[in-house]
Order: sequence, then C-alpha cells, then structure tokens
Amino acid sequence: MRTHLVYAHPHHGSLNASLRDEAVQTLEGLGHTVTVSDLYAMNWKAVADFDDFGPTENEHFMAAAGEAWEKGQITEDVKAEQAKLLEADLVVLQFPLWWYTVPAIMKGWFDRVFTNGFGYSPSRDWPRFGDGVLKGKRAMVIVTTGAAESHLSDRGVNGDINDLLFPIQHGVLFYTGMAVLPPVVISGAGWQAEYADITKHLRERLENLTETEPIAYRKQSEDYDEHKRLLPGREPEGTTGFALHIAR
Amino acid sequence: MRTHLVYAHPHHGSLNASLRDEAVQTLEGLGHTVTVSDLYAMNWKAVADFDDFGPTENEHFMAAAGEAWEKGQITEDVKAEQAKLLEADLVVLQFPLWWYTVPAIMKGWFDRVFTNGFGYSPSRDWPRFGDGVLKGKRAMVIVTTGAAESHLSDRGVNGDINDLLFPIQHGVLFYTGMAVLPPVVISGAGWQAEYADITKHLRERLENLTETEPIAYRKQSEDYDEHKRLLPGREPEGTTGFALHIAR
Repeated sequence: MRTHLVYAHPHHGSLNASLRDEAVQTLEGLGHTVTVSDLYAMNWKAVADFDDFGPTENEHFMAAAGEAWEKGQITEDVKAEQAKLLEADLVVLQFPLWWYTVPAIMKGWFDRVFTNGFGYSPSRDWPRFGDGVLKGKRAMVIVTTGAAESHLSDRGVNGDINDLLFPIQHGVLFYTGMAVLPPVVISGAGWQAEYADITKHLRERLENLTETEPIAYRKQSEDYDEHKRLLPGREPEGTTGFALHIAR
Repeated sequence: MRTHLVYAHPHHGSLNASLRDEAVQTLEGLGHTVTVSDLYAMNWKAVADFDDFGPTENEHFMAAAGEAWEKGQITEDVKAEQAKLLEADLVVLQFPLWWYTVPAIMKGWFDRVFTNGFGYSPSRDWPRFGDGVLKGKRAMVIVTTGAAESHLSDRGVNGDINDLLFPIQHGVLFYTGMAVLPPVVISGAGWQAEYADITKHLRERLENLTETEPIAYRKQSEDYDEHKRLLPGREPEGTTGFALHIAR
C-alpha cells in the first residue's frame, strides 16, 4: 500500500503537525509507503495562473490549461503531485478548517493539480463522480476544527461538518473517481479534545482502513438523468441538501 | 452608497472581467462610489502565514494572529482591505466557481483579511452569524460556473448552488454580520449563457439592490441554543442540510 498525505498547516509545532507524524508512523507501521506533501514547508504556489502552462497563445484560462496538459507543458511542481497521486492507493488530505473549508494553500493544490485534462475536462462525456483518473483509489480527510462538535452537528450553526466537507469529499475526491472514507474530524481542537483520545481515534481509523466502508455517494453514471439530476426516489427518505447524493 | 468589489479571475479579457466592468459601470451610474480589489492584478498574497503578523514570540498561529491584531502589526495589504470593507455599504465577491468554491486567491483573501480579532475570535461570546464587525452592510456574490444550471439545481450531481455557496455566504459574509442578498449565478458560462441575457440580469439585480430581500439566515443570538444548535421547529418543514438555517 502506498499513501500520499497532503498536509497544510503554517506551524511546524502545531497539533496538526503532531497528528501528521502520528498518521505517518501508524501507516508505516502497517507497511504503507508514505509520501507527504507538506504544502507550507514546500512553499507550494497557491495561485493558479498562466505561469503554470508554459508558452501559449491561448488567452482562455481553462483552454490554456488543457493545451498545456496536451503538450506536457504543465509546470513541474504540479506534475510531481500528479505522479504521487497516480502511484498512491490511498490519498489523505489533512488540514485545519479555516472559514469552513481548506486553507487557501490547499485550495490552490486542488486548483493547480486537478487541472483541465488531468482532474477534469469541460467535455460532456468526461468520467466524473465515481469515475475518473483516480478510480480504484481510496481517499480520506483528517480535519481539525476549533469549533465544538455541537456547532458542527446536524443542527449546528456552523453547518453540519459532513455538509461542509461535501464540496471537498464529493466535489474533488469522488469527482476524480476515488472512494471516500468517512472523515476523521477532530473538533474542539486545542481546548476541548484530549490529545490521547484524538491519537487513539486516529490510529484506530488508520488500522481499520481496509475494512472501512466508503461514503456511499451515488455515481453519476448510474443514478442521474441526462440533465445530471438525481433520479426520482434515489435519495434517503426525507432528505434534502447534499445528503440527497448519499445512498444510506 | 459605497461598494467594495473583490474580484478574482486570472485573465484580463475573460467573461468575468467584462461582467466586473458592467457591474462597476452600473453601480457608478446608480451613484455608488466603487472600489475594486482585483486580486490577480494586485498579485494578492494567497497564503496566510506568520509573515502577516510582524514580530512575535507566539508560536500558536491563531494566537499570533490575535496578538498582531491587538498590536496593530498586521501586514499593510490586509489592513487596506479591512479599511475598504469598513468604509463600504455593499461588499460584492465576484469569482468563477473552481472546484465548487472560490479560487485559492480569494480563499486567501478570506483567510488573511478576516483575521483573529477582526473577522472572528475564538472567544465564546464573539458576535457572529448575524452580528459582527460588518453588521449593517450588505453583501452579494456574483459567480460564474461552467456547469449547466441543472447540474447545480436541487437534485443536480454537483450539489445545489445555494448549498455550495453556503460556506461563503453564511460562513464568511453572514458570520461577520452582513445581510447577504441572493447571489447572481451565471451557469453554463462560456457555452450556454447568452452574454446579452447575462448582463441584462446583472444590471437588473444591481438596479434593485435596495429593494432586494436578504437571504433569511437565522441569527445565532436568537435562534440557537447554548450548544449553538438550531432551536426545535425553526427550520422550514421537511428540510435537512444547510437549508435548515434559512427561515422561509
């Protein structure tokens, strides 16, 4: 098993850094080969722009990205991440929840690595949501939140953490074909959660990776009509919002 | 009326650039003073890190941010944005939807501008979700999507656009106290939507700003219990997910 862990936190001595080390150690103990992209340490370029594409006459941004992909002109840091993803069996994203999603540096990893031709395409028949370039792999999010668990619960004012993670888990990880395991959520980080409990939970989740059922997202190729709307009756009864797209 | 428009698109000749110019022209025609932060043109620093905080001994990232705020040490580019927000009556965010949220450069604008002490605080009694530093102002999102409208509809595979925008509209704009107007959503951008129709719609929305009802997000101070969970029965009947938090 190969795991690629993509990690974003600005402080090398943070709770997140300790959890990353725990995760790497546990995975290596289980026989995984682990690669880590520590985005802050790498000084990862967060902003997708024309500099990523090499020489082009194309002024349309998405089209220029597609042309660069076709010609193999995408910048080397992006190619290196794509290669690590292709080699991995498991992809882990670890980050603190900032303004209800990933820090900008990790958003920039999505924007730049999952470029037109690799991660997506405007083509109508591009395989997505259950199919895609990373099909056959598993993915998992490890997220810390300062907010307490109740604030992120089904009726919590912040929004349900599962809904907050939907654009990442469903919109990025499942979009590109990966089976997404339930996230490891550490809420009340730094004030409410006990470190020993957190690491125990994290280790247990990692030790049970292969037996863990992925989130049962509906597949675009099977459960949606020609307008990409969920077929009638496929949602769990009484559900609205993002949870529609999960078979219970 | 003063409007501050925060804009993110990498190409100066894009559909987004034309719409930004339309918006500025229309708003100026209505008598607004308009400031624009064109994040790509400004070479906006996307990544929040310790360099934003001036000299500190504090190794905890959020605490260092708070200390920098207290001491007035926050970096000048962030201070300039905070000043523009404080002067504005209306804040507009305009961006293309990339991986189901804002481009990284705009996420970095959230992460850096809404820093500890200005935009949020870990304090339990910090006013948020309907109260906050920007209370009394209005906000609006203008977003373009390559995806067709049906893909972003209530049963669309991408997720409902209103849910995709929730972490931005509710989690950033309403969190800091602003009343959030319904978004201007331009789906099928570049292939499905007619430019004349788009600009007509955009102008009409801007001309009717003052009569437009904000999204009726529930206020944390009125509609949530001590655990910040929505009080029983406050949701529209039969609703789950983010839409819970909107009074219909």
